[in-house]
Amino acid sequence: MNRRIVLAQRPTGLPRETDFRLEEAAVPEPAEGEILVRAQFLSLDPYMRGRMNEGASYAPGVALGEVMVGGAVGEVIASRHPTFGEGDIAQVYTGWQQFGVAAGENAHKVDPALAPISTSLGVLGMPGITAYFGLLDVGQPQTGETVVVSGAAGAVGSLVGQIARIKGCRVVGVAGSDAKVAWVTDELGFAGAFNYKTTADYVVTLSELCPDGVDVYFDNVGGAISDAVLPRMKIGGRISVCGQISQYNLNAPEIGPRQTWHFIVKRLVMRGFLVFDYADRYSEALQELAGWVREGTLSYREDIVAGLDRAPAAFIGMLQGDNIGKRLIRMDS
Amino acid sequence: MNRRIVLAQRPTGLPRETDFRLEEAAVPEPAEGEILVRAQFLSLDPYMRGRMNEGASYAPGVALGEVMVGGAVGEVIASRHPTFGEGDIAQVYTGWQQFGVAAGENAHKVDPALAPISTSLGVLGMPGITAYFGLLDVGQPQTGETVVVSGAAGAVGSLVGQIARIKGCRVVGVAGSDAKVAWVTDELGFAGAFNYKTTADYVVTLSELCPDGVDVYFDNVGGAISDAVLPRMKIGGRISVCGQISQYNLNAPEIGPRQTWHFIVKRLVMRGFLVFDYADRYSEALQELAGWVREGTLSYREDIVAGLDRAPAAFIGMLQGDNIGKRLIRMDS
Repeated sequence: MNRRIVLAQRPTGLPRETDFRLEEAAVPEPAEGEILVRAQFLSLDPYMRGRMNEGASYAPGVALGEVMVGGAVGEVIASRHPTFGEGDIAQVYTGWQQFGVAAGENAHKVDPALAPISTSLGVLGMPGITAYFGLLDVGQPQTGETVVVSGAAGAVGSLVGQIARIKGCRVVGVAGSDAKVAWVTDELGFAGAFNYKTTADYVVTLSELCPDGVDVYFDNVGGAISDAVLPRMKIGGRISVCGQISQYNLNAPEIGPRQTWHFIVKRLVMRGFLVFDYADRYSEALQELAGWVREGTLSYREDIVAGLDRAPAAFIGMLQGDNIGKRLIRMDS
Repeated sequence: MNRRIVLAQRPTGLPRETDFRLEEAAVPEPAEGEILVRAQFLSLDPYMRGRMNEGASYAPGVALGEVMVGGAVGEVIASRHPTFGEGDIAQVYTGWQQFGVAAGENAHKVDPALAPISTSLGVLGMPGITAYFGLLDVGQPQTGETVVVSGAAGAVGSLVGQIARIKGCRVVGVAGSDAKVAWVTDELGFAGAFNYKTTADYVVTLSELCPDGVDVYFDNVGGAISDAVLPRMKIGGRISVCGQISQYNLNAPEIGPRQTWHFIVKRLVMRGFLVFDYADRYSEALQELAGWVREGTLSYREDIVAGLDRAPAAFIGMLQGDNIGKRLIRMDS
């Protein structure tokens, strides 16, 4: 039998465990061109919160009673696609379940000899590619510039800050716990960071950490953190908008101070992006990310929760920021 | 004697006439390299409101007791610069006064045979250049796209809409009176426009006027108008931020709904600019603008108020939107 987690009801605000339902079902059969994969790791990502809503944002929402969407990596159990054989490791988008079928053309073969297969969901997967293009292509950081990243200890933010450091930038992070602040400054080479949950005045703290202003702001969070960063931007500054996790669980649109005037005075550019926009350049990113990991200049951290049944709680916790690095579900069997 | 208007006190909110003072002073003497100009027209522009504040935005504020800044055009009365002779017409930045001295290298010679000299303060001056680069370089409109412009009947907005129309775009304007709406739709070739002061629901009206969404938003105004346009932007839309006149007279920062999420879903780009950023390309813009005026494809309207003593009231009125087209002061003598 297959075990899977479906969307039981649409959340209002922060999801609750009762919005999900664990159920059993028949193991699906791959059709021609498909593969059947037994997941070993599932990815949990903030974007999934948007998919729990009715109606589409940039992709359709999950229907009630359907399996929660998301990336997974595991062993090919049966293949009806020429690229994959039984026993291969494949990264697929089969969602929160043990067994899933995927079109072979949408699956990526993973070489377990090169890196732990879980990295295909993190540093060598979508979060890594997101960090790479969102920083380098959208943010255009130059050597010696100051880069601020919110969600600095998350799957994407922790990589953004390190890539900026590798490119010769001075990096300042914003994160939600003292442990996260310590990790990014002590181990990842950030020049500074602050805990937004315990910092009284973000503007004052940012002025201290970025005395010359901010050239690039990589935003995973939005809200009050962005309110403080925007006025610190330097002339010609760039804002790369990757996520707005502070806004995803609000029942009503949040209001905040209007900031557009700063765009004129400082000639700022703000650009939002989706990783899919770079689909034809994924290999370029993966090659460089893998090189940095191999040579030890790019660190990653996995925050692994064991058991499919714990996925809802682990996801809800991640939305509240209780992960450090990339949160994954390790399947028990 | 010279007559001039100085900043008497710093305004709180909308300026009042008592914030200005008309005074007499000696006619200044040009030093080596300078010219003395008797102004025939003064330019009134929204940016001047920012200069009345203490502290710099993108340029220093006017000191108390100093002449209000701004562009002027008039006759060279005395010249100590080789480029200019007595009787030449020069466009200068001598501010709100009858006689002013300017460095010859910062003055532009105006040929009165080519166009009325007042156009050097409007369509063939800073507002025209602002419209040209702000639309074409920042907004990157493509043939067949939909362009929305706020402040559509102002000195800049009325040109933006027409340039977009010349480039094959469908143009929708937002303006503050029925007369303005009639002007831009009946005479300037806008496909549609609405009066934001009498329209109940901007979102509904924009949906009707832009059923397929908005590709380029040229923003002179900000505030509630932008709140309504942002969610209508199409994927890959561009926002050119030229002004935020709705915000200039506020005593406290205004708050509004957070819009950053739209930047991700729609992959929007927002860029602020100042015309000075294009200083090395002014002649490119002026040449094309002059060609369009000559061939009759680009119309302009001047809203002329006579008399230096009426400059404060004319300026305050302009901040409230009572001008149609480019507001100028015509000097009496």
